[in-house]
Amino acid sequence: MTRSGADTSGSKADKRVQRSKAVVLAQTYELLSEAGIGGVSIDEVSRRSGVSKTTIYRHWPSRAALLLEACSTIGVTPQVPDTGSFAGDLSVLAAQFADELRSARWAAVLPSIIDAAERDPELAQLHAVLHARLMSPFAVVTERARGRGEVAPGREAADVAASIAGPLFYRRWFSREHIDEPFVRRVVEDSAGAAHGLAVDGQ
Amino acid sequence: MTRSGADTSGSKADKRVQRSKAVVLAQTYELLSEAGIGGVSIDEVSRRSGVSKTTIYRHWPSRAALLLEACSTIGVTPQVPDTGSFAGDLSVLAAQFADELRSARWAAVLPSIIDAAERDPELAQLHAVLHARLMSPFAVVTERARGRGEVAPGREAADVAASIAGPLFYRRWFSREHIDEPFVRRVVEDSAGAAHGLAVDGQ
Repeated sequence: MTRSGADTSGSKADKRVQRSKAVVLAQTYELLSEAGIGGVSIDEVSRRSGVSKTTIYRHWPSRAALLLEACSTIGVTPQVPDTGSFAGDLSVLAAQFADELRSARWAAVLPSIIDAAERDPELAQLHAVLHARLMSPFAVVTERARGRGEVAPGREAADVAASIAGPLFYRRWFSREHIDEPFVRRVVEDSAGAAHGLAVDGQ
Repeated sequence: MTRSGADTSGSKADKRVQRSKAVVLAQTYELLSEAGIGGVSIDEVSRRSGVSKTTIYRHWPSRAALLLEACSTIGVTPQVPDTGSFAGDLSVLAAQFADELRSARWAAVLPSIIDAAERDPELAQLHAVLHARLMSPFAVVTERARGRGEVAPGREAADVAASIAGPLFYRRWFSREHIDEPFVRRVVEDSAGAAHGLAVDGQ
């Protein structure tokens, strides 16, 4: 929010700062998609964005901080469905994931972050933040379904997330097969069926 | 097999070649584990192994060829179980995977190859070879189980592989949670149950 009169030049300066921050973030993400995390250096981001290294370091104290914000502003923000049934909610979430995995840029970027996280604790932290955000809808829909008696006590939200995201991620990054509709449907049926089976047997 | 007399010096030379090849492969794998695929250069492998670049290029025409052999000689060779039941076989396979994911070095190396495969067709080829070998037991145990009527026609070996490897891989590289025994058991029960459920409903 801007105040009046004397602040006009300050507000212009603010806008300029915002614009150059946006350019830096966009170029960081661009570079990440093209070359993987190893290709992202402050030098190269500065060169491409035309923003000086000093200015970049003023906004982001480290490369990891820059990467984190670049991923958080352009990356995914998953919707939490509320269809009234567990299978329905999982179906929406799985379709959303499948769609993103087939087309979104983060799908080509995430392996690079995962690889870096194996060796670099700061990037492991970045990965943990991205992962928690990506997976957060599973906790919501699982607890709601548990309230309706559709999920057994032994089945945690983390199990549900693994049973949906696991096969989809596997197919995207490991087997590199096409993620087609029938496959997505089978994954959802298996996951909802297993949770329900437990609910029936286990209570 | 060596012949006699005149071949002794040839055989000694052969042994020296074998030894230097082994050193190069070991150093390549070492470097891969430490620094990821971006850290593996013929220069650095030569420096560490003490084997000249010319000699390295004589044995392996490209960096990808060297990486492929380094991974294939030291990497995994999964056992194919034959317990007499589908659930039993999957249980052995899942336990084997879980064990490797917790401790084997390839578990720290694979994300690097997957990341590189997103951008480099030659390394995508390397990944495809490694992946096919890693997953080959699933085709064998699934087809055997199908012969015993434990697997419905609609359930492919690729689905079974995704339903076991997916959640385990997810947990190792994405959520970075501990892969404990109860989790592995639930994954196997879900997978065998889903295949069996289909066999009962669908035939």
